Amino acid sequence: MQYALFNGGKRLRPLLAILIADAIEVSREHALSIGAAIECIHAYSLVHDDLPAMDDDDLRRGQPTCHVKYDEAIAILVGDALQSLAFELLSCDEQIDASPSQKIVLINQLAKASGFSGMVGGQAIDLAATGEDSKVAHTIETLMLLHKLKTGAILKACVTMPLALSDKVTTTEKAQFECFADAIGLAFQVQDDILDCTGDTAQLGKPAGSDDEQHKHTFPALLGIEGAKQQLHTLYHDALQALAALPYNTEALEAFCELLINRDH
Amino acid sequence: MQYALFNGGKRLRPLLAILIADAIEVSREHALSIGAAIECIHAYSLVHDDLPAMDDDDLRRGQPTCHVKYDEAIAILVGDALQSLAFELLSCDEQIDASPSQKIVLINQLAKASGFSGMVGGQAIDLAATGEDSKVAHTIETLMLLHKLKTGAILKACVTMPLALSDKVTTTEKAQFECFADAIGLAFQVQDDILDCTGDTAQLGKPAGSDDEQHKHTFPALLGIEGAKQQLHTLYHDALQALAALPYNTEALEAFCELLINRDH
Repeated sequence: MQYALFNGGKRLRPLLAILIADAIEVSREHALSIGAAIECIHAYSLVHDDLPAMDDDDLRRGQPTCHVKYDEAIAILVGDALQSLAFELLSCDEQIDASPSQKIVLINQLAKASGFSGMVGGQAIDLAATGEDSKVAHTIETLMLLHKLKTGAILKACVTMPLALSDKVTTTEKAQFECFADAIGLAFQVQDDILDCTGDTAQLGKPAGSDDEQHKHTFPALLGIEGAKQQLHTLYHDALQALAALPYNTEALEAFCELLINRDH
Repeated sequence: MQYALFNGGKRLRPLLAILIADAIEVSREHALSIGAAIECIHAYSLVHDDLPAMDDDDLRRGQPTCHVKYDEAIAILVGDALQSLAFELLSCDEQIDASPSQKIVLINQLAKASGFSGMVGGQAIDLAATGEDSKVAHTIETLMLLHKLKTGAILKACVTMPLALSDKVTTTEKAQFECFADAIGLAFQVQDDILDCTGDTAQLGKPAGSDDEQHKHTFPALLGIEGAKQQLHTLYHDALQALAALPYNTEALEAFCELLINRDH
């Protein structure tokens, strides 16, 4: 579990939770607790994704993946226990001093974002859409749904979980924050797909070009590299526009968007 | 997920939660919500246990295991999503009308019972103790710890979760209920080990004799069949004694104990 959690990840999800919390004046302690739980879910999903039966990746962040370093059985258990740990963290008194009803909302949001109606559901669509004999039509609608669930749901939780701890953010403002979350969630994945085509293995810390090799349903495969880059910039501007409409200091969140679309790994 | 959940399981864990709830006058609705969440965790653990990298079993309850029926990737995702579902059920309003602080206790108990300090921890010890070149000493202490975590933690949660919803059960009585839970948790596993040696595949719905084949650390391997049976009866009497000391109607729980030690599958 330690190997999977502390292997030099970029911590983009906890960072996003912290920047949202800062903007709406939710405490750093709360944001860190949320970020820790989300990172457990993210780390577990990477360990299971890398398994031979799934993406069969040997490298993650430049290091051997969990099942290569240990073995497949251990990697399955590591992922399973990291998921339990996320819910243990959000439900224990030592970790987070929010009210019981606030904690229940956080747990419910994370459970939904993680499970069949979120991340795992997206993974299942991704599997069904991968390979030369894929039974899923490679349309932009399927691709949007796939990523909305697979990566978008957890990234959105990074935004909605801190919001659940604020009592001053209005319903309209929450909807605006959710627009922001949807745009950057998708932008993140478009950039991921572009990097898989244009990046190199050393920079990415994982094998470049593997999407194409596995006949994955991606933005560059559907729209071409230039089309995907244009899509990325549209989403970037949607995200900035959503932020601009909010009566909070969102400078750091704007910088986060820039970081996201300019990242090279 | 449906295939894994509704494949004719005995529902022993939800039954135990209901019988405890009945004894201490916690509502059936609450007991069923707890039972449903626990059954999701149990079903996920079976799907992952059966994977080729773990126990590599083809049969479960007389049916093809999830990865045989579908494939390994789907089986990994099914298990992952069933775990999320357990926490979604305990945190959503539609499913359980306990107070937020009661729900938090339930979630925390289930997360701990499921994760590294419970079921998954036990699985990891089991893996380390299995095989001809096992690095774990095959002592009674290791075996007890293995089972206390692997099967005992979730069975204990079937007892302690309904208890968490009662405000009339005293601390001393709770401790007594926990003694009962520890005894039947272990008795359940001893009977499981005995059945693997003496049962037949058709009755069990899974391959008999597989423990021995895989050089598993079991009670019959350590104590012989007769020694294991004696251990089972000692635990049975411990469980009955713990119940007898309680000021509740525990007749149905006594019958549950008898069912547990006399079961043939």
